Amino acid sequence: MLDLDFEKAKGLVPAIVQDYRSGRVLMLAYINEASMVKTLETGEAHYWSRSRREIWHKGETSGHVQKIKEILVDCDGDTVLFKVEQRGGAACHTGYESCFYRKAEPSGELSVIGEKIFDPEKVYRK
Amino acid sequence: MLDLDFEKAKGLVPAIVQDYRSGRVLMLAYINEASMVKTLETGEAHYWSRSRREIWHKGETSGHVQKIKEILVDCDGDTVLFKVEQRGGAACHTGYESCFYRKAEPSGELSVIGEKIFDPEKVYRK
Repeated sequence: MLDLDFEKAKGLVPAIVQDYRSGRVLMLAYINEASMVKTLETGEAHYWSRSRREIWHKGETSGHVQKIKEILVDCDGDTVLFKVEQRGGAACHTGYESCFYRKAEPSGELSVIGEKIFDPEKVYRK
Repeated sequence: MLDLDFEKAKGLVPAIVQDYRSGRVLMLAYINEASMVKTLETGEAHYWSRSRREIWHKGETSGHVQKIKEILVDCDGDTVLFKVEQRGGAACHTGYESCFYRKAEPSGELSVIGEKIFDPEKVYRK
């Protein structure tokens, strides 16, 4: 499917998720073939949750679904890039827009550069 | 190091590589701890080549090195984002600027959307 090599990494392919407007990289998740089918069928990102070992409809709990705008496949078919419209303005379960909200400083420390969009306590404690 | 969890995936962490100016996602590669040290020391991206099983100084053959502009770490420390200046204008060994030069069409076909920057025959046949 889409020239994707699911066998290379035991059935899973990493999916880079990028905001289709700002170009900001929001997160990285993993897809298997079934979650890719779901993504194509519904137009909303579905991943494979490695911890729960099940298909994960991103935003099912929080409402922060990711509407697929474009799907790109890399040269050797072992990574996909989802360009999405992120509903709710934040992809990260911590409430930041992007999971990449920490920057490595020359000192080796990490500093927070992202802005918190929502309070995870309120979103997930419904 | 940088709160990265190398143990989670057998010593390897995926690195998303993004052009620091255009925001275009160029490629995905993998780093281990030693390649991360090399990257920090030299300011040029070093990865772990899973096929050759060795540290891979990106651009060593082609001259298309990646100058590190910023390193971001994700929420759970299992992915990094390298924002780079791509020397030579192309990251992909096929000669395209980005490895993600193919787009999934609604029909399920892939169409080439990228522009070829160099001829790999000329660059690698030195």
